[in-house]
Amino acid sequence: MSRIAYVNGRYLPHGAASVHIEDRGYQFADGVYEVIAVRDGVLIDGDWHMERLQRSLSELQIGMPMSVTALNVVLRETARRNRFREGIVYLQISRGVARRDHPFPSADTRPALVVTARRTPPLAAKIIDAGVSVISQPDIRWDRCDIKSISLLPNVLVKQAARVQGAFEAWQVDGDGFVTEGASTNAWIINGDGHLITRPVENAILNGITRRRLLALAKQQGITVVERPFSLAEAKSAREAFLTSTTAFVLPVVRIDETVLGNGRPGSRTLSLRQLYMEFMAEKETDFD
Amino acid sequence: MSRIAYVNGRYLPHGAASVHIEDRGYQFADGVYEVIAVRDGVLIDGDWHMERLQRSLSELQIGMPMSVTALNVVLRETARRNRFREGIVYLQISRGVARRDHPFPSADTRPALVVTARRTPPLAAKIIDAGVSVISQPDIRWDRCDIKSISLLPNVLVKQAARVQGAFEAWQVDGDGFVTEGASTNAWIINGDGHLITRPVENAILNGITRRRLLALAKQQGITVVERPFSLAEAKSAREAFLTSTTAFVLPVVRIDETVLGNGRPGSRTLSLRQLYMEFMAEKETDFD
Repeated sequence: MSRIAYVNGRYLPHGAASVHIEDRGYQFADGVYEVIAVRDGVLIDGDWHMERLQRSLSELQIGMPMSVTALNVVLRETARRNRFREGIVYLQISRGVARRDHPFPSADTRPALVVTARRTPPLAAKIIDAGVSVISQPDIRWDRCDIKSISLLPNVLVKQAARVQGAFEAWQVDGDGFVTEGASTNAWIINGDGHLITRPVENAILNGITRRRLLALAKQQGITVVERPFSLAEAKSAREAFLTSTTAFVLPVVRIDETVLGNGRPGSRTLSLRQLYMEFMAEKETDFD
Repeated sequence: MSRIAYVNGRYLPHGAASVHIEDRGYQFADGVYEVIAVRDGVLIDGDWHMERLQRSLSELQIGMPMSVTALNVVLRETARRNRFREGIVYLQISRGVARRDHPFPSADTRPALVVTARRTPPLAAKIIDAGVSVISQPDIRWDRCDIKSISLLPNVLVKQAARVQGAFEAWQVDGDGFVTEGASTNAWIINGDGHLITRPVENAILNGITRRRLLALAKQQGITVVERPFSLAEAKSAREAFLTSTTAFVLPVVRIDETVLGNGRPGSRTLSLRQLYMEFMAEKETDFD
């Protein structure tokens, strides 16, 4: 089945979906995005994604191209037209089309909206059963990683470095030796006391929606959660480690650089947390057909 | 006259010039660019721009979409079709179109090439006569500003901050208090001994072509040039200050934040350097009609 994309008011065949060469998203990375998991007609934590989207736009002084209500209709309609049970909806908003010049264009420039959707096969069971490797990389990104901008070139480079080394993800490390986050995932460890540890939300990391949801689910279970930075060294000696993202959900990490964690198998606590998250998604009411 | 753009092999009316929504330039800022001044049929220091372009591409492991010779033909043809005496050619190369995923796409993905050109009126004489103001801003960019990437969101934000405060440019200041560069210009000062001072080329700044040319021209004149970092405080107490760029050439700075430099008028040495650069451009042989 051919894919359908939404571009500035129209639903188009994917191959014909284009934006102007002077869209500021293309020339200046002047825009933001969200990726939302879709499971059986549900946009998982869609409200939280909309909340974060509005914050990103507000930080950059980009207007919403339409109301949240209308945007939610477009997201669901785009997902529906692409007909899948499990997948993602991707949305991107840029500051719009204007003659190339660094400062913001005139106030009547309309933000551009692109939405795509596609089926994403579930991660193979053997990946979850085996866990994944991560490598460490210096965090060379800008100081506002809390804004979910499309200025993703550094993330591309570290993710590529991970792939070249046969790893799933790169954990970026700040100048003080602390892990910030992955290229497209949040980083977590579990210490000897069974406490969940993950870096607090500030300018150095993105406020991951799966991170936020898992924190809430874990607390409901009575698990102690500590939001504090952890060093790469601490991660390498942790009892368990894992990462979270919209597409990977909760994924066990069994190796960091050359260091194998524990017995090299996914930790039992991590697998319980993954189960918890999968159940959370399954319990959602369908919100479109 | 309507503008013409070159997009992946075709010359198109500007309004119809578009790229696919999954061009990695649009989703990941995964690309580079150059802006080249055109004066009376000459691409000013075009060879140096090509050299820098190839370096940027190489750092990102993006291939050239065509040979330098062929690219030079496209640049000149695009400029020629837009019919102007004084203006700029803009070129952008991204890693190409691929299904959205952070790592590099398959090796057969073709880099995308967009070229635009337009007339740019010379800066008004009164701006040069009066000089311009700059503001200081923290440099929050990534650690590889030597790559001329389209990941320009931080540059957009500081340039906008300058405009809001009525300034021409924002001089970005690193964590040690040293000026790195403007949002789209290089920063220079002249000290009491008449020495030209500008930050050396390393990862924190772009190797500006106008900067490079002016360094060469100044040395030919026997002017002492010192490539070293200077602090914001030193800049505010400098005898003269100016900025360089492809479109502003050499532009006197007369105010930094609230500090008026000297008598608040463009410095004589700066104006001589501007004259030197204007003469350099005028002496070039026409290389297209």
